[in-house]
Amino acid sequence: MRVVNWFRRNARRVVVPRLKSRGEAALGVSRVELDELTPDVMVFLGQSAYLQLMIFELLAVAVTTAPTTGSKEAVSRVASLALARHQSLSAEIVRKGAVPGEVMAPYASRIEGYRAKVHGADWHEALVTSYVTAGLLDDFFRRLATGLTGSSAVHVAEVYATEDGHAILLEQLRGEIESDPRLASRLAMWGRRLVGDTLLIARSVLAMPESGDAEAKLEPVFTELIAAHTRRMDALGLTA
Amino acid sequence: MRVVNWFRRNARRVVVPRLKSRGEAALGVSRVELDELTPDVMVFLGQSAYLQLMIFELLAVAVTTAPTTGSKEAVSRVASLALARHQSLSAEIVRKGAVPGEVMAPYASRIEGYRAKVHGADWHEALVTSYVTAGLLDDFFRRLATGLTGSSAVHVAEVYATEDGHAILLEQLRGEIESDPRLASRLAMWGRRLVGDTLLIARSVLAMPESGDAEAKLEPVFTELIAAHTRRMDALGLTA
Repeated sequence: MRVVNWFRRNARRVVVPRLKSRGEAALGVSRVELDELTPDVMVFLGQSAYLQLMIFELLAVAVTTAPTTGSKEAVSRVASLALARHQSLSAEIVRKGAVPGEVMAPYASRIEGYRAKVHGADWHEALVTSYVTAGLLDDFFRRLATGLTGSSAVHVAEVYATEDGHAILLEQLRGEIESDPRLASRLAMWGRRLVGDTLLIARSVLAMPESGDAEAKLEPVFTELIAAHTRRMDALGLTA
Repeated sequence: MRVVNWFRRNARRVVVPRLKSRGEAALGVSRVELDELTPDVMVFLGQSAYLQLMIFELLAVAVTTAPTTGSKEAVSRVASLALARHQSLSAEIVRKGAVPGEVMAPYASRIEGYRAKVHGADWHEALVTSYVTAGLLDDFFRRLATGLTGSSAVHVAEVYATEDGHAILLEQLRGEIESDPRLASRLAMWGRRLVGDTLLIARSVLAMPESGDAEAKLEPVFTELIAAHTRRMDALGLTA
């Protein structure tokens, strides 16, 4: 179980995320591309569309449980952006002659298992989940999309370039943490818990070859994803 | 409690919904306008925006609980249409110089009480709720909007003229009832239960004058709303 070890090692390393990882140093690369590990376009679209739908659903629950009409309104804007992305990914599936529901179906049980772990116990946790998991997954799929070819590569890149609503979530969460500073430690812990499961679900999307090289290549990519995550947590005033 | 009596009387009358109501006959009108009872534009927008958000939330829950990725996909399309309408109504609030969350706030507790009654016990009931309540409320607000003035009248009319996704819900529900005919009686009963609460919430939006005339005018309007509801239930193969 190399992956699990990897996560464990990085949990310590995450405090200084801008440093080069040991993986990068060993391989002598400055920036690792994921495109060699990009799966077949339908595999990519099925999973990115389903995960985007799941993020929408998390946000939709957060709309329902929002404590004020103002926060409800704000989160609904983020939900609509997530849903628009899902619909664009679905539209790409349709453009390629397939049915979105069918293309997503093989990933339903795995992604539902992931959702069950990350949905959060209350409004604050659900908001952190949306912020953290969407951030990680967007970064991941954006990189992975560079390995797609033809018009799908263009369309998917456009989807992940659209407004993501993170600024709205950031503002909401900052406001909540300011008005109740006791939230900080609980939400920091929750944010930390999300990373492992999210990177595992991301990893499961990859077309991993038999050779051990792929694992070595992945490590610095994931280190970069975690570094970006750490910056997002910093922006909340929380320790990653 | 005149309203309650009215509902009781109409519950019997609903079997022959195309007949003229006693109210219409007494007043000698062929079609009753609601525009005299249209409230102040902010009162209208606050409630229509909140109810539209609530319908979105019901649909979003139905996305989450959908039994297949295909139905999830279909319901998510309807959810996005409901959310787009909410956003257009919110945008109109902003255009008039106000903050949507603040304008909606006074109606939160009443509408949340309504939601608690209508959200449904499972996916099928939630879908019927979305279909039935959105149908009734759309009809109601569309009529009420004719009493607005200026640019708001135009914008709101445009909102309620956008695609509503009812056809998708109809298709989903028909498919479910066909594959499990035992659903029919339970969903028919559920649909019937929704009407009273929905007409009460609609009625609470109105600017009701002191005189008793308004009540008499309302009756045929509500009879027409119920007639349209009955046709929607007929389309599902269910008795209203």
